[in-house]
Amino acid sequence: MSSQVRTSPILLAPGPTEVDPAVLRAMSSWAESHFAQPFCNTFGDVLTMTRKLFQSQDPNAQPFVLGGSGTLGWDFVATNFIEPGEPVLCLSTGYFSNAFEQCLSTYGARTKKMTVPIGEAPDIRDVEKELRKTRYKALVVVHVDTSTAVLMPLKPLSDLLRRVSPETLLIVDGVASVGAEDLQFDKWNIDIVATGSQKAIGCPPGLAIIMASARAIEVATARKAPPTSWYASLPRWLPIMQNYEKKQSSYFATPPTQLVHAMHATLTSILSRPLSERFEQHRRKSAQVKAVVQELGLTQLARQPEHQANGLTAFWLPQGLSSKELLSRVTEKGFTIVGGMHKEVGHRYVRVGHMGYSVVGEPERHIDRGCQALREAVLEYYASKSDSSVPRQSADFTEPARANL
Amino acid sequence: MSSQVRTSPILLAPGPTEVDPAVLRAMSSWAESHFAQPFCNTFGDVLTMTRKLFQSQDPNAQPFVLGGSGTLGWDFVATNFIEPGEPVLCLSTGYFSNAFEQCLSTYGARTKKMTVPIGEAPDIRDVEKELRKTRYKALVVVHVDTSTAVLMPLKPLSDLLRRVSPETLLIVDGVASVGAEDLQFDKWNIDIVATGSQKAIGCPPGLAIIMASARAIEVATARKAPPTSWYASLPRWLPIMQNYEKKQSSYFATPPTQLVHAMHATLTSILSRPLSERFEQHRRKSAQVKAVVQELGLTQLARQPEHQANGLTAFWLPQGLSSKELLSRVTEKGFTIVGGMHKEVGHRYVRVGHMGYSVVGEPERHIDRGCQALREAVLEYYASKSDSSVPRQSADFTEPARANL
Repeated sequence: MSSQVRTSPILLAPGPTEVDPAVLRAMSSWAESHFAQPFCNTFGDVLTMTRKLFQSQDPNAQPFVLGGSGTLGWDFVATNFIEPGEPVLCLSTGYFSNAFEQCLSTYGARTKKMTVPIGEAPDIRDVEKELRKTRYKALVVVHVDTSTAVLMPLKPLSDLLRRVSPETLLIVDGVASVGAEDLQFDKWNIDIVATGSQKAIGCPPGLAIIMASARAIEVATARKAPPTSWYASLPRWLPIMQNYEKKQSSYFATPPTQLVHAMHATLTSILSRPLSERFEQHRRKSAQVKAVVQELGLTQLARQPEHQANGLTAFWLPQGLSSKELLSRVTEKGFTIVGGMHKEVGHRYVRVGHMGYSVVGEPERHIDRGCQALREAVLEYYASKSDSSVPRQSADFTEPARANL
Repeated sequence: MSSQVRTSPILLAPGPTEVDPAVLRAMSSWAESHFAQPFCNTFGDVLTMTRKLFQSQDPNAQPFVLGGSGTLGWDFVATNFIEPGEPVLCLSTGYFSNAFEQCLSTYGARTKKMTVPIGEAPDIRDVEKELRKTRYKALVVVHVDTSTAVLMPLKPLSDLLRRVSPETLLIVDGVASVGAEDLQFDKWNIDIVATGSQKAIGCPPGLAIIMASARAIEVATARKAPPTSWYASLPRWLPIMQNYEKKQSSYFATPPTQLVHAMHATLTSILSRPLSERFEQHRRKSAQVKAVVQELGLTQLARQPEHQANGLTAFWLPQGLSSKELLSRVTEKGFTIVGGMHKEVGHRYVRVGHMGYSVVGEPERHIDRGCQALREAVLEYYASKSDSSVPRQSADFTEPARANL
């Protein structure tokens, strides 16, 4: 509990992430009715602040904050914006890209998936070729795939769409990016971003957050058949969100009141300083972690700097060191990092999260101390394998054969 | 915040409900990875305790605890246990029964809805007639409809099904009943109960809890087409729940870790005493509230004692007293109660919740004090309308014309 002395390790996972003490206190807000005015005020502010988080000023764009995991956002996308049989181009950079594509297929989208070797991102020229072949209803991209730490730059995709297929919706999974990476919703003509509360937004898990453009709302409300979901139905949630933003209660399902308070606390903190500063802090801390990886003679999954996420780092393990052993060594030093997520090579790499409070809560020096723990853990392993404690060069370590995700 | 002096009113709404301070503290548990062993242990215990909450000992029955509102449980029911076109008999006792039926229709169930005048419950002889006419895939019943406080006894329905239509699944919405009303999952041959965390279970909102019988799991896994949902897919969640109950991590979507801790705290408290005692406490406090309503010369929506819920009370307002005015008078006295939920007569009645911590947390005397606040508020209104403060007799107050829900 937050009021007790902490004994658990500091969480440097790519979500959930460490939470500001003020946010944690908001989690234990008193019980209150979702119909009562104080809650309406809190939820209304959360929605208005969510617009700012997305750098959106279009009053006809619409944020949705729903009880559920970030994954629920995929159902929201699949059941409201895409009709069964419509073609969707999915760019895959890892496990989450693939799962998003499967979710879309489940609801009847005719998906085409572009895959690349692990650690890479689809070439924009290939995307262009594909867009010229078929008139896609949507281009679906995971901004940062948490399984590989591969970042797919959005601006070039947006420019490409405007040039070759302006009617195609740009749909983004921002689960591991919103709050850590620059994401200019209006300016980049993004139609939908689906994210969760528990990563760079710095709130505990339990909220799905969706931002939809005016155009996306039109598409959803003009669709031929009703949405293929109840709980994720945009027409049912739209008036609820609009009313709450006007500080009026409205009912479709009971919102998770304490999580909404926590979201209020974290958004208030995020927006108290320029977002550009927050993104810069994430870039700086990310560079620091990536420098340690390099110093240890190790290699990131994402080779190209422009495809390296700023909220997490995924790197191949030195040969002979198991994921389990490294995780356990790091845990002994007071930090939690996590293993890979890939059905063939997931056990051969690990992931370190550097998002949200651990990045911006400078006084606690989570990243400095976490880097030190990681460095020591790997160096101890090197020492155990050799008389000298000098790290071996990267050439000594075999990287797994490249595998398609 | 729980650590500060409380200024907000005590919540006697029919959900969310007041929360044990220990549960509120669990809401601000430190951030932790959903893959880490301590969380696996906590979640595993929650699942095992959930079985006990349902008085289930069948190891092949399966609890599911998902991030989302209770409403998500309906999607879980509709997309896993019913295939498009299958006939489902829905008993309606209020707003929630109707919404559940709409959810089932959204996913293609061929629903038949039995309605009754507000405050009543379908006659079991009519249900029998209907079951003899059509071979229904499922009988869907809301144990307690939160909009009307009407309770539908489950045991007679279960007996009826076994007698006339044993293959029909018995599907129960237990959102306003689980934790307040006796519900013997195995013994009464119930196939599915869907509920939420925030009512008589005494946890903040944000978890959908589903209990499925071995037979229901078989039906879901043997269905012809895959489930028509991603986030609510039983085949995707089943191994996750099974692994967590074995204290092993497993991933489909990030669980709301703090809410799982809160659920652990409340289930631990609930199961520390016999459930029969908990149900008796709810019956006693319910009788106390209902006696005040009667003493004030007012009438419950549910006329028949066997159809009166034990976790909440809904009663018609005295003529001339608006819902808004009564709610505001009661709020001034430090308690929150809520208005009605019915499109025609919702403004003519109010609802008082008496569930969970407010019932079992005796030292705080929420119900005694809440009853006193309600009594005073109504008596003040009577006094303002007359020279005498003696309450007028119930015959003086016009009950709204009966309306079908």
